[in-house]
Formats: sequence, C-alpha cells, structure tokens
Amino acid sequence: MGPGPSNVSPRVLLAMARPTIGHLDPAFLGLMDELAAQLRLLFGTANRMTIPISGTGSAGMETVFDNLLEPGDTAIIGVNGVFGQRMVANAERAGARAVTVEAPWGEPLDVGQLIEVHGSSPDARLLAVVHAETSTGVLQPLEELGAYLRETETLFVVDTVTSLGGVPVEVDERGIDVAYSGTQKCLSVPPGLAPITLSERAMDSVRARKEKVHSWYLDLTLIGSYWGGERAYHHTAPINALYGLHEGLRIILEEGLPERFERHRRFGAALQSGLLKRGLELLVDERYRLPQLTSVRVPGGVDDVAFRRQLLERFGIEIGGGLGPLAGAIWRVGLMGETCREEYVTLFLSALDELMGGRA
Amino acid sequence: MGPGPSNVSPRVLLAMARPTIGHLDPAFLGLMDELAAQLRLLFGTANRMTIPISGTGSAGMETVFDNLLEPGDTAIIGVNGVFGQRMVANAERAGARAVTVEAPWGEPLDVGQLIEVHGSSPDARLLAVVHAETSTGVLQPLEELGAYLRETETLFVVDTVTSLGGVPVEVDERGIDVAYSGTQKCLSVPPGLAPITLSERAMDSVRARKEKVHSWYLDLTLIGSYWGGERAYHHTAPINALYGLHEGLRIILEEGLPERFERHRRFGAALQSGLLKRGLELLVDERYRLPQLTSVRVPGGVDDVAFRRQLLERFGIEIGGGLGPLAGAIWRVGLMGETCREEYVTLFLSALDELMGGRA
Repeated sequence: MGPGPSNVSPRVLLAMARPTIGHLDPAFLGLMDELAAQLRLLFGTANRMTIPISGTGSAGMETVFDNLLEPGDTAIIGVNGVFGQRMVANAERAGARAVTVEAPWGEPLDVGQLIEVHGSSPDARLLAVVHAETSTGVLQPLEELGAYLRETETLFVVDTVTSLGGVPVEVDERGIDVAYSGTQKCLSVPPGLAPITLSERAMDSVRARKEKVHSWYLDLTLIGSYWGGERAYHHTAPINALYGLHEGLRIILEEGLPERFERHRRFGAALQSGLLKRGLELLVDERYRLPQLTSVRVPGGVDDVAFRRQLLERFGIEIGGGLGPLAGAIWRVGLMGETCREEYVTLFLSALDELMGGRA
Repeated sequence: MGPGPSNVSPRVLLAMARPTIGHLDPAFLGLMDELAAQLRLLFGTANRMTIPISGTGSAGMETVFDNLLEPGDTAIIGVNGVFGQRMVANAERAGARAVTVEAPWGEPLDVGQLIEVHGSSPDARLLAVVHAETSTGVLQPLEELGAYLRETETLFVVDTVTSLGGVPVEVDERGIDVAYSGTQKCLSVPPGLAPITLSERAMDSVRARKEKVHSWYLDLTLIGSYWGGERAYHHTAPINALYGLHEGLRIILEEGLPERFERHRRFGAALQSGLLKRGLELLVDERYRLPQLTSVRVPGGVDDVAFRRQLLERFGIEIGGGLGPLAGAIWRVGLMGETCREEYVTLFLSALDELMGGRA
C-alpha cells in the first residue's frame, strides 16, 4: 500500500516465469504486436509509436526528454513535487533551458500561469506536467492545457507514471503529444518497463533533430526499427518482463478501463473518508485528490518511522513516507491496481486504529 | 542455441515469480547486498561499485561510456565486430573522440597495435575492448593489455557481455578497471539487467568529472547512493528481475566457477570438433575460439534463412545468423549457461545431419 510497486497478480507472476525465448523468435514478435495494441487502448491513442521502453518509469522520462530536446531548446516544466523536479533535471541534462512554473507541493499547477509563461516562450519545444504527482497525491487537470497547446508548435508532454490505469489518461482526446508511464503503479506489473507513446508530430520533431539523441540505448528511431516493421535488432528485449506486462494488460482490459477507474474512485474515496472520520488531515484539496494515492499528514506526536515500521512488521503493510520538503510530514497510501481492494482499505484503517490506540 | 538469450533454469523463472515487494523493504535491501557480493565473486573483484544496472547489456555499455567520458576526451576502442562498433557509437554520443583500432571480423585485436596507438594518445581516458565478440565468436586476450594499462592513466574497459560466467574474466587479476555484462548469455538469466563493476580509480575518474553525466537514469553517483549505505531512492529497482539474477548467481556459485568454465570448454570443443568432422568451416582460429559461441560458415548451396527456419520449426532450435558483413555468411551457435549441455550438442549435430541430408 505504498506509492508503488503495487501488488502483482499471480497471473502476471506466472507469465513472467514462462521460458525465455529469443527476441527475434516469430512467437515473440507476435506478442510485441499485441503489446503495442494493448498499450494503445490503455493510453487512449492511435499513435503508431506506442511501446514499452526497456527500463523503469524514470527511463521512460529520460527517453522522452532525451529524444525531444536538443541543446539550446526551451522546455516549460511544471514543478509541484519530486517528479516535476526530475523532469527539470532530465531537460537540463539534455542541454535544454528549463523554464519552470511552480506550485506548492500538494497543490496542482495553475494552468493559466502555464499558458501565460508559454506566451512569453512560444518557441518552447515542449511543455511538461506530471498528471499524478507520486510525491504528493495531486491530480493535475489536463484538458485546458491540451486544447491550448494543440494550436501551438509546442509539444504537450505528460508524466502518467502513477495515473495510467488508475484514472483516465485519454492521450488523443486531450491533445497529449507524449506520455510515459511505469508498470509498477496502477498497472500492477513489476517495475522494469516504461510504456510510452508519441504522436506523429512528436515523432516528426524527433526525426527533425539536428544532433543525434545523446543516448544510444534510448534512441527512439533505433528502438522504433525493432518495434516497427523492420524488426532490426537493437538491444535484446527484456523478454520475461514483457510477458508480464502483456498479461497485466490483459487483466486490465478484461476488467475494462471504466470499471477499473470506478474501482479506484470508490475505494480511494472510502479510504479518504475513513481517514477524515478519524480526524486525520489530507494534504490535497478534494478536487485534486488522486484516488490511487492518498497523502495524509502524520498526526502530531506520532513518530513517522516507528509507525511505518510497526505497520510493516505487525500487519505486513508498507506505506510510503514523505519526500523532499514533506519528509516526516506525510504518509503516502497507495491503492493501485491489485492493491485497490476493499479489504485493504478496511485492514489499513483498522491497523491505524490499533496502532493509534484510538488517539487520533 | 543462439547467441542469447540462453535457456533459463526453472529455479530462476520461479524466483522471478515471487511476490513483488518494495525497493526499500528491509528484506529487499538484504537481497541487494547478497547480489553485490555474488557479482564480486563472478567478476573476480573486490570493487565496491559492483552492481546490476536496470537495463539490458547495452544499458550497461552506455552507463560505462556515459559516466567515464566527457566532451573532448579521447577513447581508444578496438573494433572487430558489432559490439566494438557499438562502443564507438556510445563514446561518440558521450562527446568523446574515438580512436579505433580495427581487426578483421573473426580475428582478435592486435594487442601490440593497441599499445602503440595508446603511445600516441597517452592521455586517452579509456581503452576498451570486447572480451567475447558476440557477432563473431572471438575471444580477446586481455592479460598483456591489463598489465600495460595499469601503469598508465588510462582506464581499461572490457565488454564481458558474452564472456562472464562462460570463460574466466578475473577483473582484479587482469587489471581491468571497468567491466559490464548482460544477464542473458552465460549467466542464463532473462535479459533486462546489466552487471557492472568499476575500480576505485575508475570511480575517482567519475567523481572528478567537470560536467554532470548526461544520463540521469544511468548516473553512477546517483545509483551508487541507492546501492550503497545511504539507500537513497533513485529509481524503483526492477525487483523481480533482481530476484531472478540472485537465484541465477546462486546456481552459478553452487556449480563453481572453475567447473562451469570447464563445462563450457568441454562442450564447446565437442561442438566444434563435430562441425569440423562434418567438413564445415569455423570462422575463428582455434586459439581465439570462444567455447560458448561458435561461428560456423554457412556451407555453399545452403539457404541460410530457410535452414534456420527449419531448425526452429522441426527441432525447436534457435541459432543466430551473421550480423553486418557476416550476414548470410555464418551461423552463430551458442552453448551458454543452461544451454551448454551435451544433449544439445548431440541434438544440434544430428539435426544438422538430418537437414543437410548427409551433403556437408
């Protein structure tokens, strides 16, 4: 019940235990095509370039910034948590100038301010925000930004690591050019892969680069030659991890995306109302609260680390602590994918009662 | 029986199917320490910085070149196959000048020539060779180079993707500063992780960089803070893949490294003598032939692709074709890790007889 990795279905674990076959085996190539099709459904996109990157969510982030940005480019980046900061680090390492728009941790970015800043830097190569900030539990509204940016030359990049599979992402409908994610949050697949999707105009931008992408391993034109029709060997794909993702996506599509979002909404609300009833304070305003990740203030007088250790040792429950300025100040409780079940909500709240001894 | 991925033991597959736990869970941190210790035994090193990178062998290569090289540096690189070429691409993308020393594909690099070139570029930051060239089956002698370079300021970098676990690597004894590998060759673990090791003088060189490492995901100082004592969160480790590597390394150490090398030597020799007896020609001179990967010339009049398809469809055997200038000219037959067994040698030679209809 931390901010990820979430629990993994035995079906996925068993899929990963299937015998390893070659990355150019005809049977494996078929699975790759199915995977790409599944990911398109999940992202809500028709983008041809929709693939899993062979690394964790952070490798997905790096793939995006490293392929889209060149030295001298400007990137407008919203920062209201750890992962906004990480995007800035990635953009700067790609040689770009990062123009940041900040909001207090626990609040969403001000869309009007982002649009205003874009007005002063209309030549920005991209504008990036985190859809679901894992460090705070904030859900960032995307519609207005997407509608605005699709009329500009600037690409709309969205970090969907913690949102994908838990709340609607809807890449095409919302005018998102580029989204990347991770497998260990609401997809409930072990960490190690980063699904990404890029629109044709984003890929045009990659193809129009003046310099080579800095990373050979994450160069999308090279990776695209393996995942595309040519099947040109690039690097040896992580076969068994891809088996797991394929099975995990099957589970998601069997459940149905609307049903899955509703499940997250329902149990997220149950957890949050249970916490409020006990007098605990939630970090995020109701309008921007993620159902799959709840940040709750550590009650006064409670020892953060000791409490989390007891929770793990007595009840086998892992939750996350705060990061950066929120270290020691909040707990992050995840209800992601397989972990998003009524029994976990009940168990967590009861464990809380037990450990707090009715004091909260 | 291709050039990797090799077969994977059911023990490793089952280990990967264990429930995913958190990357900061005390139980997982213990496994990380064991993994580092196992890798040190495997590499033959006391290097503190000995860890698995969260990506395939090519990510290991990129980690090394991206952390060690800065714009303006010189890298001397031996090129006698695809992976030497890939090192050049990595060095150049890191902004370095690559000075190449070439040898025909299928032959080892001339050590005297490498030393001579180093004499003309004594300020080279590193000199890199591939220990076991996966595209040709050549084993590169390392001792003389290691002894020479340890008296210089230049770091000795060795690609051990196909050698580690199949032939002795002996990092410390041979004066290797940096080695990286992959899991899907002689370790018989699914692809997805890249074990690497760096000496203290190599890490000093990383720490003395003037510019930040280009890649955030592969920045060894950041990754080292997670694998080292501080356990600082960097990226979410690929938990289940690490379970698999841990179990795969246990299997290797139970067998014993000398016993494992002897097994590879024995069955490699059996395969090679069987091929020669049938009148087939081997690409590599006996002195430099890898036991774990045999490159054999496609006999005149045999259709390369049709033959390999039949081998796969009728006998369930995958072998590799040639790459680059050797495409269509050779087959690459792997006997790596779990795949290095007498029954596979016998089956392959019998299948060959069957398909060739006694014509070879």
